Amino acid sequence: LPQSRDHLASWNPGPTKEAIVEFVNTVTTEGGPAFVPKQERVAVFDNDGTLWCEKPYYTQLAFVLDRVRALSEDHPAWRHEEPFAAILQRNRERLSQFTEHEASALVAATHAGLTPEEFRRTAGNWLEGARHPRFQHSYKQCAFRPMLDLLEYLRANDFKTYIVSGGAIDFVRAFSDEVYGIPPEQVLGSSIMNRFELRGDHAILVREPEVGSIDEGEGKPINIERHIGRHPIFAAGNSDGDLQMLQYTASRKPGFSLLVHHDDEAREYAYDRRSRVGRLDDALRVATENRWPIVSMRADWKVIF
Amino acid sequence: LPQSRDHLASWNPGPTKEAIVEFVNTVTTEGGPAFVPKQERVAVFDNDGTLWCEKPYYTQLAFVLDRVRALSEDHPAWRHEEPFAAILQRNRERLSQFTEHEASALVAATHAGLTPEEFRRTAGNWLEGARHPRFQHSYKQCAFRPMLDLLEYLRANDFKTYIVSGGAIDFVRAFSDEVYGIPPEQVLGSSIMNRFELRGDHAILVREPEVGSIDEGEGKPINIERHIGRHPIFAAGNSDGDLQMLQYTASRKPGFSLLVHHDDEAREYAYDRRSRVGRLDDALRVATENRWPIVSMRADWKVIF
Repeated sequence: LPQSRDHLASWNPGPTKEAIVEFVNTVTTEGGPAFVPKQERVAVFDNDGTLWCEKPYYTQLAFVLDRVRALSEDHPAWRHEEPFAAILQRNRERLSQFTEHEASALVAATHAGLTPEEFRRTAGNWLEGARHPRFQHSYKQCAFRPMLDLLEYLRANDFKTYIVSGGAIDFVRAFSDEVYGIPPEQVLGSSIMNRFELRGDHAILVREPEVGSIDEGEGKPINIERHIGRHPIFAAGNSDGDLQMLQYTASRKPGFSLLVHHDDEAREYAYDRRSRVGRLDDALRVATENRWPIVSMRADWKVIF
Repeated sequence: LPQSRDHLASWNPGPTKEAIVEFVNTVTTEGGPAFVPKQERVAVFDNDGTLWCEKPYYTQLAFVLDRVRALSEDHPAWRHEEPFAAILQRNRERLSQFTEHEASALVAATHAGLTPEEFRRTAGNWLEGARHPRFQHSYKQCAFRPMLDLLEYLRANDFKTYIVSGGAIDFVRAFSDEVYGIPPEQVLGSSIMNRFELRGDHAILVREPEVGSIDEGEGKPINIERHIGRHPIFAAGNSDGDLQMLQYTASRKPGFSLLVHHDDEAREYAYDRRSRVGRLDDALRVATENRWPIVSMRADWKVIF
């Protein structure tokens, strides 16, 4: 790897970029005190708000809303049945107040009944056409350019990059390879239950209207252990739901945890402590106390998309 | 890949070997009608009885028994407390009759309380010293040479090889890389729960005395979907607990399912329908009906170990 090439050209010079480069140099220097063999160079990334934009709402929610609208022709009763009615009436206030029970009903209605392959195709097709309401380009172009460069930089240094998302694993798998270069087997996420079914000799899996596991908070390091079986040496997140994954990674020596702080209202969004989606409070405090590098999107990133 | 080299030299010529080679040639022939791109070449293998010997008992059980003996010094009450007493008294009859509740108590006592890394180290150290009671060599040398050759052959053809074991995921991870060349992130198995714990600033995972998920029967294809997110094109198993994984794989076109039949009492063991461990009944019938290749260890394998 020629040292002269700047893989992080989309990052402004400064302490955050320096810390990343120094860490990567340290763990890849053979014979050095903190050298890490290639197979142990595991890097884990949250998705929503870390790798791509999560405002004004999660992309997966936009998909769910559009699915409800698309499916509503076959479900005339939904016009009078919550939470579907609120969606069909585009009642923004109600949308932001859905209970957990209502959210589950939405997942059941829009995510279940298909095979995993069918679901990924459905989500992939939707992503082809859907547009971000503010930026007016595809959601797939809402990935942060500096994070794409960071993924490439780590892979060029023989890191294996994983997504560890609180979102639905199959939704993320529908685009992770195309957008991030991360194949489905390196995506962890929240999951719904699958049922094994024999149709004659033909065995299939069918998605059930039931949540399997939630990949958030303490669930992130637990899922990492189960899925990867290695302790990550690099982690990036942007919200309190990522805190435990960042703590877990920072507890390994060497280990590097990076917190993305949305402080750029002009180019993207600015939010932290009081945000409903992507709340960043405890993790910001712990990152500051532990001197984990904190990305200021405004100061550290030359471009956003 | 030079066509002239025989990667499966430990296999006798015959229909089973021919079927394997023909399948691999078919899916790797670019432009052919059944070509499968490299990233979709997923091969899944059961472990106990498929990749290595599972008689006279699962290796993991031998580990559990030795762990109980090793830990008994610190637990004097175990001498009078079942199921521990039966183990300490080497009561073979009782051993074979443990209830599910007693088995859970054993897992709790021997598998919990450690971090995942500590557990893998403990299991790895045990494997260094333990010997198979009949063959008198290390359990790590109880891997079947023809299956090791098959793993190598598939990887030489850009397959990604996974273990999908009913055994404890961390036990298999303790030796899978050394014995099979399969890294921890490509091992699926039954799991116990982990708890996230902060000790000051230090975040660790601690193994809990509680079963998480059982990777057996329908659980195998379900875990494959969750972990890998791709439909395997090659599967190998040896018992009824592998049937659904084999059906699932065979349902994909192209898809290849292989059943290992233990019919070689002289060189290993002979068992199927009436065996308590590694019972092979339904899967043998379904394999025959569907004309999946069935490995006769006696006829198809030149050597066993």
